[in-house]
Amino acid sequence: MSARTMAQGEFELIERYFGDIGLPASNLSLGPGDDAAVVSVPPDRELVLSLDTLVEGIHFDATADPADVAYKSLAVNLSDLAAMAAEPAWFLLSLTIPGIDTDWLEAFAASLKRTADQFGIALIGGDTCRGPLSISIQIGGLVPTGDYVTRSGASAGELILVSGEIGRAGLGLAYSRGEIELAPSIAAPALEALHRPHPRLELASFLRRYATAAIDLSDGLQADLGHLLKASHCGARLECDRLPVNPWIVEHDAFEYALSAGDDYEICCCVPRDAETALEEWNREYPSCPLSIVGETTASGYRLLRNDREIDLSEASGFNHFG
Amino acid sequence: MSARTMAQGEFELIERYFGDIGLPASNLSLGPGDDAAVVSVPPDRELVLSLDTLVEGIHFDATADPADVAYKSLAVNLSDLAAMAAEPAWFLLSLTIPGIDTDWLEAFAASLKRTADQFGIALIGGDTCRGPLSISIQIGGLVPTGDYVTRSGASAGELILVSGEIGRAGLGLAYSRGEIELAPSIAAPALEALHRPHPRLELASFLRRYATAAIDLSDGLQADLGHLLKASHCGARLECDRLPVNPWIVEHDAFEYALSAGDDYEICCCVPRDAETALEEWNREYPSCPLSIVGETTASGYRLLRNDREIDLSEASGFNHFG
Repeated sequence: MSARTMAQGEFELIERYFGDIGLPASNLSLGPGDDAAVVSVPPDRELVLSLDTLVEGIHFDATADPADVAYKSLAVNLSDLAAMAAEPAWFLLSLTIPGIDTDWLEAFAASLKRTADQFGIALIGGDTCRGPLSISIQIGGLVPTGDYVTRSGASAGELILVSGEIGRAGLGLAYSRGEIELAPSIAAPALEALHRPHPRLELASFLRRYATAAIDLSDGLQADLGHLLKASHCGARLECDRLPVNPWIVEHDAFEYALSAGDDYEICCCVPRDAETALEEWNREYPSCPLSIVGETTASGYRLLRNDREIDLSEASGFNHFG
Repeated sequence: MSARTMAQGEFELIERYFGDIGLPASNLSLGPGDDAAVVSVPPDRELVLSLDTLVEGIHFDATADPADVAYKSLAVNLSDLAAMAAEPAWFLLSLTIPGIDTDWLEAFAASLKRTADQFGIALIGGDTCRGPLSISIQIGGLVPTGDYVTRSGASAGELILVSGEIGRAGLGLAYSRGEIELAPSIAAPALEALHRPHPRLELASFLRRYATAAIDLSDGLQADLGHLLKASHCGARLECDRLPVNPWIVEHDAFEYALSAGDDYEICCCVPRDAETALEEWNREYPSCPLSIVGETTASGYRLLRNDREIDLSEASGFNHFG
């Protein structure tokens, strides 16, 4: 870590919080405290790399619990690894803070440590500087050479799958802003999905074996599947009735939460039709990470079947625009 | 790259600027445009990783030339690699911008591309989001396994070397703020050092062969050598007369620019005494990257010899505090 723009005493204070986060990384040659970290990569593995920044006022409010902010900063990066079918290895943190708030720093660091431990990943370096609050995390994961999954391998006639339930985080956001009312039994998991999204790392082996393409759902199914289709040069036909959503969304005919609210960090992937047996087996063995068939890939177009009507998803920038 | 928090059209605009930056990375399996990038690491190499953020208002002014900002964002990260004796391989960029300013983006991207080409490094991924202007760059470099140089290998009785000239960037900053007057022949290289610091990557082979420890000078020689000494558990005795500084600094007795102004991105390293012949040879062969002996490591203490007086550098937080 570099002390650039932090007074020395302040920097040492911060360093204390981040000195020991996560399990020892197995391929780490040199950890925090130098100009850079040094890692080795096993000869049969490739390195998967992602860098994401969370900014106060955009990705989280000034009033957000620092424990949630730390969790989510790491989780959204872990979700990128999940979409590539990679396993987490280590991460670097660049923390920009407006000043020294020891309560905030303590809560942030403690949660980052818990999250790193939970997902078996170590903090190996980074820097700290002064400025508007933002958190950049660069994550590294490992994948058997050639076995990573991209957005670009799907073709027409495949099944489109979505993990878990979509629209939850969007419901959580709307609820927390007072825009909608929810029963406690719906509100609680919705807020959990918003603040503590679960990166679907458990899907790695399934994706490596069966998926032709995958993406994580950060911007909502419509936009993110759109990216996948564009990269794969094919189309899709989704069925509204098959979207894995909360009954509240069905009752209120509020599918925009599932299609365009985003922030769910579930995985959307495509598999050949003959993977259906493996899919059923997966759903029996891993009930906590169900995979739902939501439609199929086509040669072209991007449509949603809803109440016997086909809605064009290719032009609208969000589901709620289709009117 | 992820489109999170950018409207789709805006994001595509930005993607256009950053789609093709740097030479093709030789070990790249998957570049920008997916959830993550994928690289391989040759079996005889280790990976050296650094993450640094530059924030508007802290590291550069709102009026800064975006071309300089792009250059410096990459250069400070390259300097971390230089200090580890690593060779640049690739980088990820997380760009946070308050809005779409096409002139700014065009100038920033063009300069980033030139800089990446100059140092033979490719942009392989990252993300873009909205917020107060800041640039996070995560850089990856390669080093023959076990040959990286750390801050922690120095011991008493070694020579302390500094590359180039120190204090230049500090002079440039003071000049640009109107705090000092400089002749054009001094002002020009001082401003160049401030806005376009040259990462000393050319030192890699020398450092790998001779250096017991090294660090790049981002916070000034006093603080950064202090980090090296602390990590190496030894002391140092510097000689003010041997500091490679501009005659202006000597004439004005303004060594604080060399010792505590920082931002020079020269390399400070330690070598055994018997490397002196190799050092002379280096200086003959590479006159554009001279290495000056500025003192020696000792068992303990941290002192500067100046006008037959010894100044304690170990306590003061900056040279200008010694009075």
